[in-house]
Amino acid sequence: MSLDKLFNPTSVAIVGVSKEKHKVGHLVAKNMLDQGYRGGLYFVHPTEKTILGAPVYPRLEDIKKKIDLVIFATPASVTINLLESVYNVGVRHVIIFAAGFKETHTRESDQLEADLLKKIGKYKLKILGPNCIGFVNTGRAINATFLKLPAPVGNVGIISQSGALGSALEDYFAAHTNLGFSYFISLGNKSSLDESDCLTFLAGDPKTKVIGMYLEDVVDGDKFHKALTAASRQKPIVILKGGSTQAGSQAAISHTGSMVGDDQVFEAVVSQTGAIRVHSYALFQQLLMLYSFNRIPSSRRILVLSNAGGMGVLLTDEIVKENLELITISEKTKKKLYSAFGEIKKITVHNPIDLLGDASAFHYEKAITLTQKEQNFGATVILLTPQANTEIMETANVIAKAQRKLDRAHKSRRNPIYPVFMGGHSIHKANTFFETQTMKYFKTFDDLPKILSSICDRRDRLTTLASNSKQVNHMSLAAHDLDIRTLLLSNQNKKFLNQYDSLKLLSHTGITTAQTYHVVSERDLKAVLAKEGYPLVAKIASEKITHKTEVQGVITGLNTWEELVDAYSHLIQITGKQTGCYIQKEYKGYELIVGAKRDRTFGPVILVGMGGIYAELLKEAVQFVYPFSFEYFRYILQQTKLNAFIKGYRNRPSLDASSLYVVAERLGALMKTYTQIKEVDINPLIADGKKMMIVDARIIV
Amino acid sequence: MSLDKLFNPTSVAIVGVSKEKHKVGHLVAKNMLDQGYRGGLYFVHPTEKTILGAPVYPRLEDIKKKIDLVIFATPASVTINLLESVYNVGVRHVIIFAAGFKETHTRESDQLEADLLKKIGKYKLKILGPNCIGFVNTGRAINATFLKLPAPVGNVGIISQSGALGSALEDYFAAHTNLGFSYFISLGNKSSLDESDCLTFLAGDPKTKVIGMYLEDVVDGDKFHKALTAASRQKPIVILKGGSTQAGSQAAISHTGSMVGDDQVFEAVVSQTGAIRVHSYALFQQLLMLYSFNRIPSSRRILVLSNAGGMGVLLTDEIVKENLELITISEKTKKKLYSAFGEIKKITVHNPIDLLGDASAFHYEKAITLTQKEQNFGATVILLTPQANTEIMETANVIAKAQRKLDRAHKSRRNPIYPVFMGGHSIHKANTFFETQTMKYFKTFDDLPKILSSICDRRDRLTTLASNSKQVNHMSLAAHDLDIRTLLLSNQNKKFLNQYDSLKLLSHTGITTAQTYHVVSERDLKAVLAKEGYPLVAKIASEKITHKTEVQGVITGLNTWEELVDAYSHLIQITGKQTGCYIQKEYKGYELIVGAKRDRTFGPVILVGMGGIYAELLKEAVQFVYPFSFEYFRYILQQTKLNAFIKGYRNRPSLDASSLYVVAERLGALMKTYTQIKEVDINPLIADGKKMMIVDARIIV
Repeated sequence: MSLDKLFNPTSVAIVGVSKEKHKVGHLVAKNMLDQGYRGGLYFVHPTEKTILGAPVYPRLEDIKKKIDLVIFATPASVTINLLESVYNVGVRHVIIFAAGFKETHTRESDQLEADLLKKIGKYKLKILGPNCIGFVNTGRAINATFLKLPAPVGNVGIISQSGALGSALEDYFAAHTNLGFSYFISLGNKSSLDESDCLTFLAGDPKTKVIGMYLEDVVDGDKFHKALTAASRQKPIVILKGGSTQAGSQAAISHTGSMVGDDQVFEAVVSQTGAIRVHSYALFQQLLMLYSFNRIPSSRRILVLSNAGGMGVLLTDEIVKENLELITISEKTKKKLYSAFGEIKKITVHNPIDLLGDASAFHYEKAITLTQKEQNFGATVILLTPQANTEIMETANVIAKAQRKLDRAHKSRRNPIYPVFMGGHSIHKANTFFETQTMKYFKTFDDLPKILSSICDRRDRLTTLASNSKQVNHMSLAAHDLDIRTLLLSNQNKKFLNQYDSLKLLSHTGITTAQTYHVVSERDLKAVLAKEGYPLVAKIASEKITHKTEVQGVITGLNTWEELVDAYSHLIQITGKQTGCYIQKEYKGYELIVGAKRDRTFGPVILVGMGGIYAELLKEAVQFVYPFSFEYFRYILQQTKLNAFIKGYRNRPSLDASSLYVVAERLGALMKTYTQIKEVDINPLIADGKKMMIVDARIIV
Repeated sequence: MSLDKLFNPTSVAIVGVSKEKHKVGHLVAKNMLDQGYRGGLYFVHPTEKTILGAPVYPRLEDIKKKIDLVIFATPASVTINLLESVYNVGVRHVIIFAAGFKETHTRESDQLEADLLKKIGKYKLKILGPNCIGFVNTGRAINATFLKLPAPVGNVGIISQSGALGSALEDYFAAHTNLGFSYFISLGNKSSLDESDCLTFLAGDPKTKVIGMYLEDVVDGDKFHKALTAASRQKPIVILKGGSTQAGSQAAISHTGSMVGDDQVFEAVVSQTGAIRVHSYALFQQLLMLYSFNRIPSSRRILVLSNAGGMGVLLTDEIVKENLELITISEKTKKKLYSAFGEIKKITVHNPIDLLGDASAFHYEKAITLTQKEQNFGATVILLTPQANTEIMETANVIAKAQRKLDRAHKSRRNPIYPVFMGGHSIHKANTFFETQTMKYFKTFDDLPKILSSICDRRDRLTTLASNSKQVNHMSLAAHDLDIRTLLLSNQNKKFLNQYDSLKLLSHTGITTAQTYHVVSERDLKAVLAKEGYPLVAKIASEKITHKTEVQGVITGLNTWEELVDAYSHLIQITGKQTGCYIQKEYKGYELIVGAKRDRTFGPVILVGMGGIYAELLKEAVQFVYPFSFEYFRYILQQTKLNAFIKGYRNRPSLDASSLYVVAERLGALMKTYTQIKEVDINPLIADGKKMMIVDARIIV
């Protein structure tokens, strides 16, 4: 779907222009003129003759020239009635500013929404909005918004479900050199065009170097998943999403009348597409700025120079916490530094390199020149506090010179230098200067490690996502389709399958399940014993009990006939003799939970975590939106406490990630194929090396 | 110890003044003059006659006037030699700027350090430094530092182990209205005066409303613990500590030649004294500013007004995450808001109240006036983004007016309003204006909930710390002193006590321990069985094995004679027949870990957490520096996942916090009394309601 006529129009008509300066119909006309749009620009108003020095047409039909885009600054009901004339003059691309559609939740607004959707279909319209503030395309000098300022020109593309975010960012960019929008797109209610359409458009736009998105919901999960996957491979995408807590989603409902999906699922989607999610507006701004300036660390290995020891110590703490590394200065460089500084001052040469409080620009220059010869590091941080003899601007110049030299040596702009000049009064000028050099400075060091780390994380994720080499035995479910369907059909009036049926169904997916015997007599017990031997486990057979351990419904460690009979007697006392109980062999290994749910936006989601009775309390779990590759699955597990199992914990054999992946993958395939299944809980899955054994499970239908 | 002559001197001599403008001996003299010090000020230099227009004395002895404080701007070795003359002219208070003492780690510097310590003792000197940058007392117009700017006047007291932090803060304060130092004290090497001395001094200073500390180590743990406890009851104390990670502490060693204690222990000390610890420099600044302006939320219940729905959603997420609450607007106020706005615009009245993008100053005023009549909330946050019709300064004035009205109504300055005007270009003037009103504004909303929450946390902790009402049976250890000493003596050549002795020793403290039988024959087994009955547990008796589960050295669930004998046979196969094994009754309940270690700075520390074989992996634990009250103990447990046990998890009886406290308290008393004990591990402690049963323990001596 090309959106060129919408976002790169050669001619634009504005319906509802106004002479009243505070009205949207005035502001958007003025913004188009002020930004300097050179295409055809036509104003429409039923009675006015000229506005802002330009002629005004009474109706769209009176323009009689080719129009690419019509912008409506009229009220909701008026706009709806004019959509037919849009169609009649041959236009398909429209912006609607008006509020008063689905977000308002009145009978009148619901009717307007229905009419709108009908006309979108009937006239094949592509609409931005309604309830939006339009868009900016600085490359074409288009400012089709009612933002306050002329839009600053730059390479940051923004897609936002909040117009206010645009005004805040615009104001921020306006205060900074070399920062600005390529595009700003306000999504509004997304009645026609959604976040995925706009994302795909910006991913293909060569002027846009980084995309920032503010979202409150996602219209079509699959479409978004695909669009984000494709876009992330082309350029960095930073996402800020509102409504991540329950109270948050309540606010979101009333905001653009939209529902907010499960936040952890959204987090999983962002992670496995290679985008970056942030939870802070400040980090959002900082990341956009860093990518806009293309000052990306080439690795996690950091070099720090400082005239403030204490700040170096604090920064080091954050670097370590954020999984970055301080490089070790080589003996060769150390020697050079000592011989260069020896006569001048006694600096301490280990990373961070403390140049001491009286470091001059000359000292900084010397230290930068010598340390940049070190091998194998990804970025340099230069701390400065304004002390008595500190030469602020001179030092800023020295740093900029060093960065220019690096830029010449490395065309790809690797090895960025990040100046962190701390204070307020004295360092403002230096920071402004760094911006003119398109260098990313930081006002304090606090967020710097987190920001660099999130960039390195993205790179690592993209690498694992690109290497989908591992061959996994993707056994088709087709062979057992009849068995699975039969089991589901026989349980169709129930809320969930009992343990026996749940395990049976899961066994048809190719995952090993503990053989479960339903026993109703001592004779049955004997038969099981003859087949399996000790140790055994007895489990309650009631379908009403969710948490078996709470009623002492799971009796483990049965090693003698006496114990076995005791356990059996105990369980049938609870449920009645005719119900009997389940008997299984007892297995040893790591207790895991593997679960599945069906997210209303993104479909099947698989959860993998530490199992057992404390699983819900500990919440040591990760989520994956199906499908996902083995490499990505293993990479994510390695970031969690489950990595201790993968490495082997307390003399137990190490957990085989590949075998665990097969379980998770099969579960995903099951959810994908059989949509009557709502949720699956496998708890515990006993993992013993490569052996993955389901001993208990429940399937919700 | 009065430090008045040091920090409030009526006369000051500076030794080593200089004509060379970049030298410390020039800078400090100039700073004293520029700040406008009105006391006696005497310059000392062997050959100069006048410097900066003032007469210069060749030696201290030549001044012949009363001197309170001598400042040395001379090199280390020169300074050491002049300390005798300080004593001779009757001065006891000294500042030494020179570096080159213990932090340098050379033979020469070690000698200088030793000389310094000797002379401190001999001449009874109270020294600030060495290797410091002096101090500022703005109330007396004293700037005895070589900071770059005249020190801004205010009510923030700073104690810092880094001089550079002073320069960064000074520069920051200089850029902001109504912000400044009461004192800035640079600690340097702390060879004589330490952080506790300075803290106690500032706690008693009426001009200081909030104290900020930057520390890398603590000289005397007990002294600091007491000083911080006393000071926290008088005013808020915000602490930033470097060296919280291992690499961090490495950097700290080389910085002021100091050792960094265990970071979690430090965190526990700060928490249980009622101070606030932050891990970010930016938060440090923000909290100082907030306390300086005395704009403290009176509760966790927040009201939000906004012209930007999306920002309201994001802020709501953070409010919920940080354990704050959004108040529910009453029907009465809702009605008033609807009737006030009904004719003008359709706003959404639930918290956050969305005034919509075109909100004018009039709309803000209306909404503020009506909502401030709500009962029972602790703070108001007002979000604004600069949209087309936004009246930035007018709205700022409306907000300031509302705050002034609240200030008149509530003398204690409760119910603060926090403006968050987001952008850059357009809102700078408004933020500057808010400062002139001593209102705490925020540039983005991101950190606001975290900051308010940390203030509320402090208040809650102070409350629990003040209410030490719960009577706990503080059984004295004296009654069993002989037993304990005998056990320790009999193990004095070992690294740790075996399980049997460990449990025995712990039983003498009054904590219930599982009766442990050491069996070496089937006859012994029979005897145990007769006494205890099933179920039983068998444990390996080897002293060499730390993690018993790794060698299958713990066999639980023994319910029959056959099993018991099997378990016994298995264990003596590992250790040999003559070693035998341990037998205990099996207990059910929550598995906890309770441990103790001896911190080299702060003494006995007690750890309480989730136990079992995954204890080390999960790290769900909290630490307490001994002693600590029950109220505080319970409050802290309630912030952890153990709270699920206190409330009762999965049908188990709820864990009695008071009984658990007794265990932790007894362990602390044991550590305090018997200093030969290094560490204690109780894992697991089986907690069943009020019953606390130690089933396994190890004491390291």
